[in-house]
Amino acid sequence: MVKLAFGSIGDSFSLESLKCYLAEFIATLLFVFAGVGSAIAYDKLTKDAALDPAGLVAVAVAHAFALFVGVSIAANISGGHLNPAVTLGLAVGGNITILTGIFYWIAQCLGSIVACFLLKFVTNGLSIPTHGVASGMNALEGVVMEIVITFALVYTVYATAADPKKGSIGIIAPIAIGFIVGANILAAGPFSGGSMNPARSFGPAVVSGNFADNWIYWVGPLIGGGLAGLIYGDVFIGSYAPVAASGEYV
Amino acid sequence: MVKLAFGSIGDSFSLESLKCYLAEFIATLLFVFAGVGSAIAYDKLTKDAALDPAGLVAVAVAHAFALFVGVSIAANISGGHLNPAVTLGLAVGGNITILTGIFYWIAQCLGSIVACFLLKFVTNGLSIPTHGVASGMNALEGVVMEIVITFALVYTVYATAADPKKGSIGIIAPIAIGFIVGANILAAGPFSGGSMNPARSFGPAVVSGNFADNWIYWVGPLIGGGLAGLIYGDVFIGSYAPVAASGEYV
Amino acid sequence: MVKLAFGSIGDSFSLESLKCYLAEFIATLLFVFAGVGSAIAYDKLTKDAALDPAGLVAVAVAHAFALFVGVSIAANISGGHLNPAVTLGLAVGGNITILTGIFYWIAQCLGSIVACFLLKFVTNGLSIPTHGVASGMNALEGVVMEIVITFALVYTVYATAADPKKGSIGIIAPIAIGFIVGANILAAGPFSGGSMNPARSFGPAVVSGNFADNWIYWVGPLIGGGLAGLIYGDVFIGSYAPVAASGEYV
Amino acid sequence: MVKLAFGSIGDSFSLESLKCYLAEFIATLLFVFAGVGSAIAYDKLTKDAALDPAGLVAVAVAHAFALFVGVSIAANISGGHLNPAVTLGLAVGGNITILTGIFYWIAQCLGSIVACFLLKFVTNGLSIPTHGVASGMNALEGVVMEIVITFALVYTVYATAADPKKGSIGIIAPIAIGFIVGANILAAGPFSGGSMNPARSFGPAVVSGNFADNWIYWVGPLIGGGLAGLIYGDVFIGSYAPVAASGEYV
Repeated sequence: MVKLAFGSIGDSFSLESLKCYLAEFIATLLFVFAGVGSAIAYDKLTKDAALDPAGLVAVAVAHAFALFVGVSIAANISGGHLNPAVTLGLAVGGNITILTGIFYWIAQCLGSIVACFLLKFVTNGLSIPTHGVASGMNALEGVVMEIVITFALVYTVYATAADPKKGSIGIIAPIAIGFIVGANILAAGPFSGGSMNPARSFGPAVVSGNFADNWIYWVGPLIGGGLAGLIYGDVFIGSYAPVAASGEYV
Repeated sequence: MVKLAFGSIGDSFSLESLKCYLAEFIATLLFVFAGVGSAIAYDKLTKDAALDPAGLVAVAVAHAFALFVGVSIAANISGGHLNPAVTLGLAVGGNITILTGIFYWIAQCLGSIVACFLLKFVTNGLSIPTHGVASGMNALEGVVMEIVITFALVYTVYATAADPKKGSIGIIAPIAIGFIVGANILAAGPFSGGSMNPARSFGPAVVSGNFADNWIYWVGPLIGGGLAGLIYGDVFIGSYAPVAASGEYV
Repeated sequence: MVKLAFGSIGDSFSLESLKCYLAEFIATLLFVFAGVGSAIAYDKLTKDAALDPAGLVAVAVAHAFALFVGVSIAANISGGHLNPAVTLGLAVGGNITILTGIFYWIAQCLGSIVACFLLKFVTNGLSIPTHGVASGMNALEGVVMEIVITFALVYTVYATAADPKKGSIGIIAPIAIGFIVGANILAAGPFSGGSMNPARSFGPAVVSGNFADNWIYWVGPLIGGGLAGLIYGDVFIGSYAPVAASGEYV
Repeated sequence: MVKLAFGSIGDSFSLESLKCYLAEFIATLLFVFAGVGSAIAYDKLTKDAALDPAGLVAVAVAHAFALFVGVSIAANISGGHLNPAVTLGLAVGGNITILTGIFYWIAQCLGSIVACFLLKFVTNGLSIPTHGVASGMNALEGVVMEIVITFALVYTVYATAADPKKGSIGIIAPIAIGFIVGANILAAGPFSGGSMNPARSFGPAVVSGNFADNWIYWVGPLIGGGLAGLIYGDVFIGSYAPVAASGEYV
């Protein structure tokens, strides 16, 4: 059951909300800088060789560590989404209003774009790698891959951070959120790239001017994230007493 | 001393129990998707080369991170077993009833099978690697390897999560449970594969139709997990005051 | 708004302050020993080959783990800075007095120098690698790279440790602080080296006698750290009620 | 100031003490099984090639993860030493009696020996690698290396676990203790091997029958661990009020 919340327009422009957008912008910028930067670093070290297992570990660990930190540094201000699919997944469960969610999306995408422009500058103009499905795969397979792994990510956000009954699991939630992305990149990296995050894919597309396949990283993650919000919200949180079910995402 | 609990049949079909089975199904699915996916990713990147140390790190880290997250996302609902050997080990100490435990096994195995079918689809039909003992080893050695490392896993579950006196160690229990699997894969990977989990091995066997050696990953882990439950339950938890000894696994 | 605090001179020579300097000295020594040691280890294993992705992972993980531990072991005594850029960033927000901060810098640099002399001895005189920008990059790009990644580090220190409203995020703050450095080394390693820490770069320069580029690792990190202190302090902490805004860094 | 405690002989044979020895035996066994196992796994995968950076990462991560877990599973029973150098370091600060400490040493060494015999069996008789200093280094350099890195380990044990004022750092203490060993192996691995633990080195020596250099892994770690206990105990814990200074290691 979709529980979209609309809220008053003023709420989305309050000082508190503006600080949330800034926190999302900064945290996404820093996450994308390290994540995309690790992919450029691989290209630099190997003179653009094809990805090998050591490089996959490097890229996966960079994303895992950086997302964990990005969620941690924004958690107490904006909730630490850093990802339009997470924001949609939480909106589906009524944890954030539509309008505020749209501003989160904008802040996240801007953070990603600025991160990639910075990377372009500090690497003396190296090319910014974009997400795309591997040769031998079709777009549907890429979409389904992104659906499954983004479902994992947003389900993790719900179970460890948004669930009012999360208990002490909430203490390690940012680590879990970062590490499921690391694990999924180790699986999906050589196939769909393992984005799970439209903003993560959008910044490199803008800066490189290459939007081929970019739609896949909107459609897949948004479906996966929305599904996770529906299932976790309905089956688990939805079964709690009303007071808990309306709990704010902290 | 085995403390098997039987419970009423109704308990195993309560709404709460059904939610537990669903949580186990989803968490095991997501864990196996990342774990087996990382093995397929290695084959893809290296065109099916023999495993090398960088690939072993990739596979071990993927399992460590994904199991940590899988335990975290199911912990507050089903206890976060994701593994028939863990369920058996906890049943031996009286922490879950026999019938409920059987449904846990079914949910875990189904999650693993669905994960492997999904992997088959999203990788455009690549083969799903199954566990097996390395050439030069015999089956007994594989069984003993799996006994030792699964003992480590289930002992960790007891000491950090099921022990009523776990204290603040319980906060980091899911990380410990994931990371002992990562450490043990780094040791056992080139020998038995390092399963520690019959469901993890069963899904790939079903989807690939290859059941050679699969019995090893039932016999070894179940013996190792059962032993851990007996020893930890009897020597440590068994020595506590009666009220603590009957504490529910949380 | 810069909130530099001056304090009484006596405070900077109290027994408590002297213990802080010792804690910073020891923790920085142990961090630099493991971090620089991992770079020497790579040179030893590969007979001074150019860095490859597996080596980058080794160096990044060594720094991530060692900084996490270094912050943990000094946190309750000195706050666990281990880094002049962190000390400056916290001074800008009024969390440490100027004079005490200067002694922190001295303790950190001495720790780094001693660590490198120890490494020189235990490795039978191998050369100590220093930070420098990669060929094909100019100094400005190196400075900007260090600004961005040190901003990430000090922003993380503020959000997870110095913010009075950090809540339970504070429990995992040392892990976040270590891991953002690991992530940023995976991105910046092949470009600027990924220092984020003038003391980390200064020790190797002293022991090797090579100060080329060393200024970059003072200018970049100090600007980045100062900026993070200004932004986080003003926008987020500065908006709290006065009593919270004057909270001591713990 | 050495604060050796002697205690009554009966205390060292109480039921509680016997459970401590068993917990140390099991936890050390499981730690050494994964740690030494990862070194054998490297030899197996590479047909005994010289260590490379990817292999160093594998071995370091295996030790880091396994020691973290080993400390976690014994922490609430025996304190989670798993290492004669840790036991000595804590004895120097009066946190464990001499006689009980000796039984800890025996339990730890037995655990390591049994682990190596098990590895010998499950790997179909592969050779068990022992610690030794690299060619081109002398024994003194190896001893000093082990002193420095074991000092780091035992200082971490004190600051995060034994210090009565550890606060919430205690929650992540087992992770810090495991990860400082991982970081130090990344630095010391190609030089002294990075033992930090006489029991870790003793088991492989016994099972392989090769005691060359083994004394280095007793002398270095015991000096380093003892020094850490003296310095942390005297300078930091020793300055607290008397009641805190006599606090039991938990």
